[in-house]
Amino acid sequence: MNSDPDCIFCKIVKGDIPSEKLLEDSASLAFMDIGPVAPGHALLIPRNHFSTVDEMDPETAGQVLANLPRLVSAIKGATECEGVNVLQNNGSVAGQLVGHVHFHIIPRNTRDRFEFNWPADKYQEGQIGLLAGKIRGLL
Amino acid sequence: MNSDPDCIFCKIVKGDIPSEKLLEDSASLAFMDIGPVAPGHALLIPRNHFSTVDEMDPETAGQVLANLPRLVSAIKGATECEGVNVLQNNGSVAGQLVGHVHFHIIPRNTRDRFEFNWPADKYQEGQIGLLAGKIRGLL
Repeated sequence: MNSDPDCIFCKIVKGDIPSEKLLEDSASLAFMDIGPVAPGHALLIPRNHFSTVDEMDPETAGQVLANLPRLVSAIKGATECEGVNVLQNNGSVAGQLVGHVHFHIIPRNTRDRFEFNWPADKYQEGQIGLLAGKIRGLL
Repeated sequence: MNSDPDCIFCKIVKGDIPSEKLLEDSASLAFMDIGPVAPGHALLIPRNHFSTVDEMDPETAGQVLANLPRLVSAIKGATECEGVNVLQNNGSVAGQLVGHVHFHIIPRNTRDRFEFNWPADKYQEGQIGLLAGKIRGLL
Protein backbone atom coordinates (compact mmCIF):
# COMPACT_ATOMS: atom_id res chain seq x y z
CA MET A 1 0.00 0.00 0.00
CA ASN A 2 1.50 3.28 -1.14
CA SER A 3 0.11 6.00 1.12
CA ASP A 4 1.02 9.66 1.73
CA PRO A 5 0.54 10.58 5.41
CA ASP A 6 -0.33 14.19 4.48
CA CYS A 7 -2.90 13.30 1.80
CA ILE A 8 -6.57 13.77 2.67
CA PHE A 9 -7.68 11.07 0.21
CA CYS A 10 -5.17 8.57 1.64
CA LYS A 11 -6.73 9.32 5.04
CA ILE A 12 -10.17 8.61 3.59
CA VAL A 13 -8.87 5.31 2.11
CA LYS A 14 -7.52 4.32 5.54
CA GLY A 15 -10.74 5.39 7.27
CA ASP A 16 -9.00 8.07 9.36
CA ILE A 17 -11.35 10.60 7.80
CA PRO A 18 -14.97 9.47 7.35
CA SER A 19 -16.66 9.44 3.94
CA GLU A 20 -19.87 8.27 2.32
CA LYS A 21 -18.42 5.32 0.44
CA LEU A 22 -20.11 4.10 -2.72
CA LEU A 23 -17.92 1.17 -3.74
CA GLU A 24 -14.49 -0.24 -3.06
CA ASP A 25 -12.27 -3.05 -4.29
CA SER A 26 -8.61 -3.94 -3.87
CA ALA A 27 -7.49 -1.08 -6.14
CA SER A 28 -10.31 1.48 -5.94
CA LEU A 29 -12.56 3.57 -3.77
CA ALA A 30 -15.53 5.73 -4.75
CA PHE A 31 -17.17 8.17 -2.35
CA MET A 32 -19.38 11.25 -2.33
CA ASP A 33 -17.74 14.66 -2.83
CA ILE A 34 -18.65 16.77 0.21
CA GLY A 35 -18.46 19.98 -1.85
CA PRO A 36 -20.65 18.85 -4.75
CA VAL A 37 -20.85 20.77 -8.00
CA ALA A 38 -24.23 19.01 -8.36
CA PRO A 39 -26.10 16.61 -6.03
CA GLY A 40 -24.66 13.11 -6.48
CA HIS A 41 -21.18 14.38 -7.44
CA ALA A 42 -18.81 11.49 -6.60
CA LEU A 43 -15.09 10.74 -6.76
CA LEU A 44 -13.44 7.55 -8.01
CA ILE A 45 -9.84 7.14 -6.83
CA PRO A 46 -7.05 4.57 -6.65
CA ARG A 47 -6.42 3.32 -3.09
CA ASN A 48 -2.70 3.82 -3.66
CA HIS A 49 -1.33 7.32 -3.76
CA PHE A 50 -0.52 8.73 -7.21
CA SER A 51 -0.32 12.51 -7.66
CA THR A 52 -1.38 12.59 -11.30
CA VAL A 53 -2.79 10.07 -13.79
CA ASP A 54 0.44 9.76 -15.79
CA GLU A 55 2.13 8.35 -12.65
CA MET A 56 -0.29 5.39 -12.55
CA ASP A 57 0.69 1.95 -13.79
CA PRO A 58 -1.65 0.68 -16.53
CA GLU A 59 -2.92 -2.26 -14.43
CA THR A 60 -4.10 0.03 -11.63
CA ALA A 61 -5.62 2.50 -14.07
CA GLY A 62 -7.51 -0.34 -15.74
CA GLN A 63 -8.69 -1.81 -12.44
CA VAL A 64 -9.90 1.52 -11.04
CA LEU A 65 -11.60 2.67 -14.23
CA ALA A 66 -13.34 -0.64 -14.87
CA ASN A 67 -15.68 0.67 -12.13
CA LEU A 68 -16.54 3.84 -14.04
CA PRO A 69 -19.48 2.48 -16.11
CA ARG A 70 -21.47 1.03 -13.22
CA LEU A 71 -20.73 4.03 -11.01
CA VAL A 72 -21.94 6.48 -13.66
CA SER A 73 -24.97 4.27 -14.27
CA ALA A 74 -25.93 4.18 -10.57
CA ILE A 75 -25.44 7.94 -10.18
CA LYS A 76 -27.59 8.57 -13.26
CA GLY A 77 -30.27 6.27 -11.84
CA ALA A 78 -30.22 7.77 -8.36
CA THR A 79 -30.18 11.42 -9.41
CA GLU A 80 -32.27 11.06 -12.59
CA CYS A 81 -29.86 13.50 -14.25
CA GLU A 82 -29.88 14.20 -17.99
CA GLY A 83 -26.14 13.71 -18.48
CA VAL A 84 -22.81 13.24 -16.73
CA ASN A 85 -19.31 14.71 -17.00
CA VAL A 86 -16.30 12.66 -15.97
CA LEU A 87 -13.43 15.02 -15.21
CA GLN A 88 -9.93 14.32 -13.95
CA ASN A 89 -7.57 17.24 -13.34
CA ASN A 90 -3.77 17.00 -13.32
CA GLY A 91 -1.87 19.97 -11.92
CA SER A 92 -3.12 23.16 -10.26
CA VAL A 93 -3.30 24.87 -13.68
CA ALA A 94 -5.88 22.20 -14.61
CA GLY A 95 -7.91 22.76 -11.42
CA GLN A 96 -6.48 19.92 -9.31
CA LEU A 97 -6.99 20.76 -5.62
CA VAL A 98 -6.06 17.44 -3.95
CA GLY A 99 -2.79 15.82 -5.07
CA HIS A 100 -4.17 12.27 -5.27
CA VAL A 101 -5.64 11.14 -8.61
CA HIS A 102 -9.43 11.46 -8.61
CA PHE A 103 -12.09 11.19 -11.28
CA HIS A 104 -15.02 13.53 -10.69
CA ILE A 105 -18.40 12.15 -11.73
CA ILE A 106 -20.69 15.16 -12.11
CA PRO A 107 -24.42 14.80 -12.81
CA ARG A 108 -25.64 17.36 -15.37
CA ASN A 109 -29.00 18.93 -16.06
CA THR A 110 -30.37 21.73 -18.22
CA ARG A 111 -29.73 25.10 -16.59
CA ASP A 112 -27.45 23.71 -13.87
CA ARG A 113 -24.48 25.69 -12.60
CA PHE A 114 -21.40 23.78 -13.78
CA GLU A 115 -20.11 25.04 -17.11
CA PHE A 116 -17.07 25.03 -19.35
CA ASN A 117 -16.21 26.72 -22.62
CA TRP A 118 -14.92 24.96 -25.74
CA PRO A 119 -12.40 27.18 -27.54
CA ALA A 120 -11.82 24.76 -30.44
CA ASP A 121 -9.06 25.85 -32.78
CA LYS A 122 -7.50 24.53 -36.00
CA TYR A 123 -3.95 23.42 -36.74
CA GLN A 124 -1.81 25.17 -39.32
CA GLU A 125 -1.08 22.94 -42.35
CA GLY A 126 1.27 20.12 -41.32
CA GLN A 127 1.33 20.95 -37.60
CA ILE A 128 -1.02 18.15 -36.48
CA GLY A 129 1.21 15.49 -38.05
CA LEU A 130 4.37 16.94 -36.52
CA LEU A 131 2.87 17.04 -33.05
CA ALA A 132 1.32 13.56 -33.41
CA GLY A 133 4.73 12.20 -34.42
CA LYS A 134 6.31 13.77 -31.35
CA ILE A 135 3.65 12.19 -29.10
CA ARG A 136 4.01 8.78 -30.76
CA GLY A 137 7.77 9.01 -30.23
CA LEU A 138 7.19 9.26 -26.48
CA LEU A 139 4.68 6.39 -26.19
CA MET B 1 -17.00 -5.61 -33.64
CA ASN B 2 -19.91 -3.40 -32.69
CA SER B 3 -19.98 -0.51 -35.15
CA ASP B 4 -22.53 2.20 -35.98
CA PRO B 5 -22.51 2.99 -39.73
CA ASP B 6 -23.49 6.61 -39.06
CA CYS B 7 -20.87 7.26 -36.38
CA ILE B 8 -17.87 9.40 -37.34
CA PHE B 9 -15.62 7.75 -34.72
CA CYS B 10 -16.59 4.25 -35.95
CA LYS B 11 -15.55 5.44 -39.41
CA ILE B 12 -12.20 6.58 -37.97
CA VAL B 13 -11.78 3.17 -36.26
CA LYS B 14 -12.42 1.42 -39.59
CA GLY B 15 -10.10 3.80 -41.43
CA ASP B 16 -12.88 5.14 -43.67
CA ILE B 17 -12.08 8.61 -42.33
CA PRO B 18 -8.37 9.41 -41.88
CA SER B 19 -6.94 10.43 -38.50
CA GLU B 20 -3.59 11.07 -36.86
CA LYS B 21 -3.46 7.92 -34.76
CA LEU B 22 -1.43 7.89 -31.56
CA LEU B 23 -1.96 4.34 -30.30
CA GLU B 24 -4.26 1.41 -30.82
CA ASP B 25 -4.87 -2.04 -29.36
CA SER B 26 -7.63 -4.62 -29.65
CA ALA B 27 -10.03 -2.51 -27.56
CA SER B 28 -8.81 1.07 -27.98
CA LEU B 29 -7.81 3.85 -30.33
CA ALA B 30 -6.28 7.23 -29.55
CA PHE B 31 -5.98 9.99 -32.14
CA MET B 32 -5.53 13.74 -32.41
CA ASP B 33 -8.63 15.96 -32.10
CA ILE B 34 -8.80 18.03 -35.30
CA GLY B 35 -10.56 20.88 -33.47
CA PRO B 36 -8.13 21.16 -30.53
CA VAL B 37 -8.96 23.15 -27.42
CA ALA B 38 -5.16 23.26 -27.01
CA PRO B 39 -2.32 21.92 -29.20
CA GLY B 40 -1.89 18.20 -28.49
CA HIS B 41 -5.58 17.69 -27.57
CA ALA B 42 -6.22 13.97 -28.15
CA LEU B 43 -9.11 11.52 -27.88
CA LEU B 44 -9.04 8.03 -26.40
CA ILE B 45 -11.97 5.85 -27.49
CA PRO B 46 -13.16 2.24 -27.43
CA ARG B 47 -13.05 0.60 -30.88
CA ASN B 48 -16.55 -0.74 -30.29
CA HIS B 49 -19.46 1.67 -30.40
CA PHE B 50 -20.90 2.75 -27.03
CA SER B 51 -22.92 5.98 -26.84
CA THR B 52 -22.09 6.80 -23.22
CA VAL B 53 -19.68 5.46 -20.62
CA ASP B 54 -22.39 3.77 -18.53
CA GLU B 55 -23.12 1.50 -21.54
CA MET B 56 -19.58 0.09 -21.49
CA ASP B 57 -18.78 -3.31 -20.00
CA PRO B 58 -16.17 -3.11 -17.20
CA GLU B 59 -13.61 -5.18 -19.13
CA THR B 60 -13.62 -2.82 -22.11
CA ALA B 61 -13.54 0.26 -19.87
CA GLY B 62 -10.54 -1.21 -18.03
CA GLN B 63 -8.74 -2.14 -21.25
CA VAL B 64 -9.26 1.24 -22.89
CA LEU B 65 -8.39 3.29 -19.82
CA ALA B 66 -5.27 1.29 -18.99
CA ASN B 67 -3.82 3.39 -21.85
CA LEU B 68 -4.63 6.70 -20.17
CA PRO B 69 -1.44 7.07 -18.06
CA ARG B 70 1.04 6.59 -20.89
CA LEU B 71 -1.00 8.69 -23.29
CA VAL B 72 -1.18 11.59 -20.82
CA SER B 73 2.53 11.17 -20.12
CA ALA B 74 3.48 11.30 -23.82
CA ILE B 75 1.24 14.32 -24.46
CA LYS B 76 2.76 16.13 -21.47
CA GLY B 77 6.23 15.32 -22.76
CA ALA B 78 5.53 16.36 -26.35
CA THR B 79 3.71 19.61 -25.54
CA GLU B 80 5.66 20.51 -22.38
CA CYS B 81 2.34 21.59 -20.86
CA GLU B 82 1.94 22.46 -17.17
CA GLY B 83 -1.10 20.25 -16.58
CA VAL B 84 -3.76 18.12 -18.24
CA ASN B 85 -7.53 17.72 -18.02
CA VAL B 86 -9.15 14.41 -18.85
CA LEU B 87 -12.80 15.02 -19.72
CA GLN B 88 -15.50 12.63 -20.86
CA ASN B 89 -18.96 14.00 -21.63
CA ASN B 90 -22.17 11.94 -21.57
CA GLY B 91 -25.25 13.52 -23.13
CA SER B 92 -25.66 16.79 -25.00
CA VAL B 93 -26.39 18.61 -21.72
CA ALA B 94 -22.87 17.60 -20.66
CA GLY B 95 -21.32 18.84 -23.91
CA GLN B 96 -21.16 15.53 -25.80
CA LEU B 97 -21.04 16.26 -29.55
CA VAL B 98 -20.22 12.79 -30.97
CA GLY B 99 -22.32 9.88 -29.70
CA HIS B 100 -19.39 7.47 -29.27
CA VAL B 101 -17.62 7.42 -25.89
CA HIS B 102 -14.46 9.53 -25.98
CA PHE B 103 -12.04 10.76 -23.35
CA HIS B 104 -10.60 14.19 -24.14
CA ILE B 105 -6.99 14.69 -23.07
CA ILE B 106 -6.46 18.45 -22.95
CA PRO B 107 -3.03 19.99 -22.28
CA ARG B 108 -3.24 22.99 -19.93
CA ASN B 109 -1.07 26.03 -19.40
CA THR B 110 -1.27 29.28 -17.45
CA ARG B 111 -3.43 31.80 -19.31
CA ASP B 112 -4.71 29.30 -21.88
CA ARG B 113 -8.25 29.52 -23.22
CA PHE B 114 -10.04 26.43 -21.85
CA GLU B 115 -11.84 27.13 -18.59
CA PHE B 116 -14.54 25.79 -16.30
CA ASN B 117 -16.17 27.07 -13.15
CA TRP B 118 -16.48 25.12 -9.90
CA PRO B 119 -19.79 25.96 -8.20
CA ALA B 120 -19.17 23.77 -5.14
CA ASP B 121 -22.18 23.54 -2.84
CA LYS B 122 -22.96 21.85 0.48
CA TYR B 123 -25.54 19.22 1.35
CA GLN B 124 -28.31 19.88 3.85
CA GLU B 125 -27.92 17.79 7.02
CA GLY B 126 -28.58 14.11 6.24
CA GLN B 127 -28.95 14.55 2.47
CA ILE B 128 -25.53 13.18 1.50
CA GLY B 129 -26.22 9.88 3.27
CA LEU B 130 -29.66 9.50 1.72
CA LEU B 131 -28.32 10.09 -1.78
CA ALA B 132 -25.30 7.83 -1.21
CA GLY B 133 -27.65 5.05 -0.05
CA LYS B 134 -29.73 5.47 -3.19
CA ILE B 135 -26.60 5.23 -5.38
CA ARG B 136 -25.29 2.18 -3.47
CA GLY B 137 -28.68 0.52 -3.96
CA LEU B 138 -28.22 0.76 -7.72
CA LEU B 139 -24.65 -0.54 -7.86
